[in-house]
Amino acid sequence: MTAVTAELIFDAYVALVSGDRRQAVKYWAEDLRFLVPGRHAQAGWREGLDDLLAFRRALDEASGGSFTADPVTSMINDDHSMDVVRVHAVRAGAPAGSTSPYDVLDGRSMQVFRWSEGRVVEGYAGWFGDGAINYEQWWSPIGPDGTRRDI
Amino acid sequence: MTAVTAELIFDAYVALVSGDRRQAVKYWAEDLRFLVPGRHAQAGWREGLDDLLAFRRALDEASGGSFTADPVTSMINDDHSMDVVRVHAVRAGAPAGSTSPYDVLDGRSMQVFRWSEGRVVEGYAGWFGDGAINYEQWWSPIGPDGTRRDI
Amino acid sequence: MTAVTAELIFDAYVALVSGDRRQAVKYWAEDLRFLVPGRHAQAGWREGLDDLLAFRRALDEASGGSFTADPVTSMINDDHSMDVVRVHAVRAGAPAGSTSPYDVLDGRSMQVFRWSEGRVVEGYAGWFGDGAINYEQWWSPIGPDGTRRDI
Amino acid sequence: MTAVTAELIFDAYVALVSGDRRQAVKYWAEDLRFLVPGRHAQAGWREGLDDLLAFRRALDEASGGSFTADPVTSMINDDHSMDVVRVHAVRAGAPAGSTSPYDVLDGRSMQVFRWSEGRVVEGYAGWFGDGAINYEQWWSPIGPDGTRRDI
Repeated sequence: MTAVTAELIFDAYVALVSGDRRQAVKYWAEDLRFLVPGRHAQAGWREGLDDLLAFRRALDEASGGSFTADPVTSMINDDHSMDVVRVHAVRAGAPAGSTSPYDVLDGRSMQVFRWSEGRVVEGYAGWFGDGAINYEQWWSPIGPDGTRRDI
Repeated sequence: MTAVTAELIFDAYVALVSGDRRQAVKYWAEDLRFLVPGRHAQAGWREGLDDLLAFRRALDEASGGSFTADPVTSMINDDHSMDVVRVHAVRAGAPAGSTSPYDVLDGRSMQVFRWSEGRVVEGYAGWFGDGAINYEQWWSPIGPDGTRRDI
Repeated sequence: MTAVTAELIFDAYVALVSGDRRQAVKYWAEDLRFLVPGRHAQAGWREGLDDLLAFRRALDEASGGSFTADPVTSMINDDHSMDVVRVHAVRAGAPAGSTSPYDVLDGRSMQVFRWSEGRVVEGYAGWFGDGAINYEQWWSPIGPDGTRRDI
Repeated sequence: MTAVTAELIFDAYVALVSGDRRQAVKYWAEDLRFLVPGRHAQAGWREGLDDLLAFRRALDEASGGSFTADPVTSMINDDHSMDVVRVHAVRAGAPAGSTSPYDVLDGRSMQVFRWSEGRVVEGYAGWFGDGAINYEQWWSPIGPDGTRRDI
């Protein structure tokens, strides 16, 4: 049995964020499931590694690469890991200095992963406080004035 | 100046719902704007007649043709009209008998249109009570258990 | 039968906003019902004139008297009236210059009233665009950082 | 330094749920902060042990004692603990068999606590999937038809 360690988790994140499928499959099971929180266009159960990678690409595109997640605390038990992070991201194309929740995502969230034989097989994420609504607005097809945006 | 009458409004709805562009353009201006309420995938300002027709097609597809709007009351002034309607629609593919708000849309809404020379040039819609959240859930990519659905 | 006129509607609003029960009862039926949109602390069916007046007092208190509603268009038929208004209100105690939706309410809404013998017997209100969520946040017990506020 | 153990966490929950302040203060710091998710009447930062106990009483009252939280997984590190639980609760007074999200709360949530010297000093909670909206509806003053309820 492969132990879940901080190093393994870190490497898994790096592989996923790289978008390189050959790296990602070392840490993420082909048939994993990941529950993206909310009910926006990217929300719900993402089924399989390709669908998870598609979600990550959508996140990169919508944020213009601005998405950051600063660690707050992490925990591990036999087969689960959990990270609390401070998230910040600005929608690609947002007016400079916008403070609208449709443009700026800022909040504390957590992700939980279940591991088997060194790979993530299931995961789910959520928001603390009232962050869930910010996530809905940030992902929505509309900007602050109701105009539909391209991404 | 073409007066806004109940007959004109009725004919405009029929032409729009038919999806026949040649009929629709008799009542709906080429450069109209219509504000679909909420922040779901179809929400925001739909710009121009083709975009409005695209919204109607999306509604037909998502509801499998089940969308109904029963009139409650209507009003007209010099250049505006308003309809309060009772809306009911079931998502295509929903399990029979589902009562989930992700499957069943049911509420009272209103639409306001501004008219010029016998055609609608601007419109916006909204929900009474707590209907706005039902509309978000009904349009969302997820069913009651978070599974992403095709339409 | 008392006709519903623009003057009658105007007088009814003035009487309600005054908070003077003796004036209000001239235009608002004792057993009226009014559906406040959303699911916040003031939302739902307000039953009877006293409950409607209580809602108006809550609005005055939460907004510190800053609530304004500028007319966009109005319509009347035999027994209904409708007003589209542009609403703006700032929560009492909000930091000067705040742009947070938890502090600033700004959007287009509508109210529909049913009249009988010169008095409102039923009413309901709603928001256009994505205004419903702003109303939820504005009425909520929390400010932008999640701190609970007094009013 | 008091180690954070599964037994300590269990005892802390039992003491809190008992509502007995003398028991609770053994595990929960007088000046703790706890962030209740969402924007409903009980949401936001609850400041101090008495405010946390007030939240628990509100939960007991609204659920008529029906609130349950079944453990899914738990984790501990040096100064934090985390629990993922399956929550189920029915609003007091709900019609038997109701499936409405305004009556029935059902979802997966997590709580994170930060500990110091054997007591919780900070905590925050959140929902997975689209559970945040169910929590808003469940806590709201309205039932499925918009009628305001007593609790």
